[in-house]
Amino acid sequence: MAGKDNKKLVAEITSMDEDFARWYTDIVKKADLIDYSSVKGCMIIRPYGYAIWENIQKILDARFKETGVENVYMPMFIPESLLKKEKDHVEGFAPEVAWVTHGGNERLAERLCVRPTSETLFCEHYANIIKSYRDLPKVYNQWCSVVRWEKTTRPFLRSREFLWQEGHTMHRTAKEAEERTVQMLNVYADFFENDLGIPVVKGRKTDKEKFAGAEATYTVEALMHDGKALQGGTSHNFGNGFAKAFDIQFLDNDNTLKYAYETSWGVSTRIIGGIIMTHGDDSGLVLPPSVAPIQVVVIPVQQHKDGVLEAAEGIADTLKAAGYRVKLDDSDQSPGWKFSEYEMRGVPLRIEIGPRDMAEGKCVIVRRDNREKTFVSLENLTNSVAEGLSNLRDALYEKALNNRNARTFVAKSFDELKDIAEKESGYIKAMWCGELECELKLKEEADVSSRCIPFEGEAVSDTCVCCGKPAKKLVYWGKAY
Amino acid sequence: MAGKDNKKLVAEITSMDEDFARWYTDIVKKADLIDYSSVKGCMIIRPYGYAIWENIQKILDARFKETGVENVYMPMFIPESLLKKEKDHVEGFAPEVAWVTHGGNERLAERLCVRPTSETLFCEHYANIIKSYRDLPKVYNQWCSVVRWEKTTRPFLRSREFLWQEGHTMHRTAKEAEERTVQMLNVYADFFENDLGIPVVKGRKTDKEKFAGAEATYTVEALMHDGKALQGGTSHNFGNGFAKAFDIQFLDNDNTLKYAYETSWGVSTRIIGGIIMTHGDDSGLVLPPSVAPIQVVVIPVQQHKDGVLEAAEGIADTLKAAGYRVKLDDSDQSPGWKFSEYEMRGVPLRIEIGPRDMAEGKCVIVRRDNREKTFVSLENLTNSVAEGLSNLRDALYEKALNNRNARTFVAKSFDELKDIAEKESGYIKAMWCGELECELKLKEEADVSSRCIPFEGEAVSDTCVCCGKPAKKLVYWGKAY
Repeated sequence: MAGKDNKKLVAEITSMDEDFARWYTDIVKKADLIDYSSVKGCMIIRPYGYAIWENIQKILDARFKETGVENVYMPMFIPESLLKKEKDHVEGFAPEVAWVTHGGNERLAERLCVRPTSETLFCEHYANIIKSYRDLPKVYNQWCSVVRWEKTTRPFLRSREFLWQEGHTMHRTAKEAEERTVQMLNVYADFFENDLGIPVVKGRKTDKEKFAGAEATYTVEALMHDGKALQGGTSHNFGNGFAKAFDIQFLDNDNTLKYAYETSWGVSTRIIGGIIMTHGDDSGLVLPPSVAPIQVVVIPVQQHKDGVLEAAEGIADTLKAAGYRVKLDDSDQSPGWKFSEYEMRGVPLRIEIGPRDMAEGKCVIVRRDNREKTFVSLENLTNSVAEGLSNLRDALYEKALNNRNARTFVAKSFDELKDIAEKESGYIKAMWCGELECELKLKEEADVSSRCIPFEGEAVSDTCVCCGKPAKKLVYWGKAY
Repeated sequence: MAGKDNKKLVAEITSMDEDFARWYTDIVKKADLIDYSSVKGCMIIRPYGYAIWENIQKILDARFKETGVENVYMPMFIPESLLKKEKDHVEGFAPEVAWVTHGGNERLAERLCVRPTSETLFCEHYANIIKSYRDLPKVYNQWCSVVRWEKTTRPFLRSREFLWQEGHTMHRTAKEAEERTVQMLNVYADFFENDLGIPVVKGRKTDKEKFAGAEATYTVEALMHDGKALQGGTSHNFGNGFAKAFDIQFLDNDNTLKYAYETSWGVSTRIIGGIIMTHGDDSGLVLPPSVAPIQVVVIPVQQHKDGVLEAAEGIADTLKAAGYRVKLDDSDQSPGWKFSEYEMRGVPLRIEIGPRDMAEGKCVIVRRDNREKTFVSLENLTNSVAEGLSNLRDALYEKALNNRNARTFVAKSFDELKDIAEKESGYIKAMWCGELECELKLKEEADVSSRCIPFEGEAVSDTCVCCGKPAKKLVYWGKAY
């Protein structure tokens, strides 16, 4: 960072209104979240980016475990024959997997794909260990990386390799599987809304958009600042389709053999892209406190003056002791440079302390989102920080919700929908007959895809926005990342 | 676990004296640490095994971060041309890597190997981000899986894919790099000895045994119950060889361009194999408390009787509140079955509570390692558990140290060494002239490899045990996993 100055740093970010895609790429690079490598389509997640992921993992992993989840690790390779066991599944994934054909100098007898997802491996294992109803449920998860050979890639949003968690569970009854599917969706929704300050729409995917091999896919959809949607996390109910393909049967207490019911659910490093595009601004990242690697940065002003550095250290120590992630920047950069630098990095709160503040027993807290300055008493610092972080979380949520509300439209006819899709960017709520044909036509002629059939939401008309036949479902349509 | 009975369970483990290799395989399977899959040479790490790994990670990750380590994530693929950039390195690894040749249906322009280790990727990244002495040191680490196409595999000890951490650091001076190399070796040594109760010998690898591309490899070597050695963790000083191959130069404060100095260091899931083979016995696993997924199991006796279950729950709650990992087993299996089950799983302490104990305000604590029973007052329970766990850790270390001492031999002549190597299993301390020829001859004719040149240890004679020329170094020789 040496040698950069304040103005140069900020000037390096493209304005989001000017070019949202470039603004995004500028941020992931300039905030040191990622770097590129000679491995095309893959990214290096740098310390600051990875620390966000570690915080996401820590929160979610604890929530998962509260619901009885146990972590495991499956091999990263899947033999071609195993991948092919469930028909829909292999059709969905085979075109985009990476194939290992040689081990050392020897050609393998059977190709192995690098896991794009691990349903097949979990099923093979479950077939091995599930014998009786007493062995159920099994609620496993793994944190790992997966590979999908994408043509076009963007950091965090779409890359050939990405980090994620994949939960795979087995149940005695269809009802229990459905409950687990919804339960995990709710864990995701709660995490997005309460921890990340990102409002989501919970709903079900259409058959066209559901996961390869699933009976039902549920999703949490978030709307980015530019009005494009991001699928934040998905939870799938497989019924017993995979259990039949993999022969996962158990002896029930009525002494008959039954197939088990399966779910899977996952979120990925894509969440980081969602945070950037929901909360970021022209000065850089804005991080929700729950996952910010640095929650509070302490910046001494006129630090060469008597006692300033000691006071700054005292503040940092107090806040660390209270459990906050704190950084004291006592480097020889100017305060102005530091202000910009930590704004770029999205640190939620900045504390400034100089000789005059000290004399008054105060310091200044500046919020990253609205730059609001508050003079607070040093005696009451920990409470002020708690309040500041909490208010910032609420404000982020509020702002994102307002953006979503302003960008949510209703269309009752095809022309209306097409018109909105051309002029605006956001969700279009419109009714649907349930036919694939209409979904395809909307994609082709209005360039929108179905984001989800929301769990909540009232009919906006009686007829399908596309064909005019009686409508079955309300659908959120939009353009997506 | 339903339907198994006490006797059957224990009878399923081969005695370690009868067949150590089978005893090991029995344990990893019967204690539900791993399962096999259709992916040859790879293993599934099951919840109980993975929980041990999570505990290992948690402890080490915190220790790393205390020394300034930052975590990152690098791509899992390495283009062939990148792997080839450092000559010794590619020669060491190319014969045992898995090659990806196709993405989807397309043949790749250049093959990618699945990382066997990531020096090359880290170096490419470092070349990109290190410009000035102010950018140094860089102290990065990643937790991930790596792949080496081994012919013969054994769970945890040698598998085609395994989990590990790999630290890669860059420094301004050779001295600083050497200090970091030794610092991380000491972190490992401390973890093995104090947390896992496994005594280690710290030392340097001979040139023959060092890491491909390293100037020096340091190791912590542990001796297993059967007298075979296990390389527990290694720390490498690369000098500036990789920096030259990857052009990692920085402008120093004397305004000249200099090559940076590199280290790398890692430990893997092999540690779990080491724990099993150091502490296990004929009843199963014996886990050091620091990494045991369950530190205390509470087993109610005559649990149908008034108040027993409540008392057991009270004990479990008290210990959980004190921060211990506790399981209450109130299933309808017999207490005898439960005793065997948790012995098999290596749970350090078992607490039994029945009506008579309750009446006396007491419970029974049974230690896994020596089965010592202590009646303790419920009032003082938390202290008794702390003491029990601490004593068990000490006893494990003591026992392992005694085993190592009993299995450490000294040889002053080739015949003596060969004789010991044939009759005994353990370390043989013997002097070495430093020539590769002698090292190869010992391997070929006495079937021992050099484990390390210990940091501490006095000369046992003046001449090389092999050629009789003046000796330069004391070496620990042995057979290894």
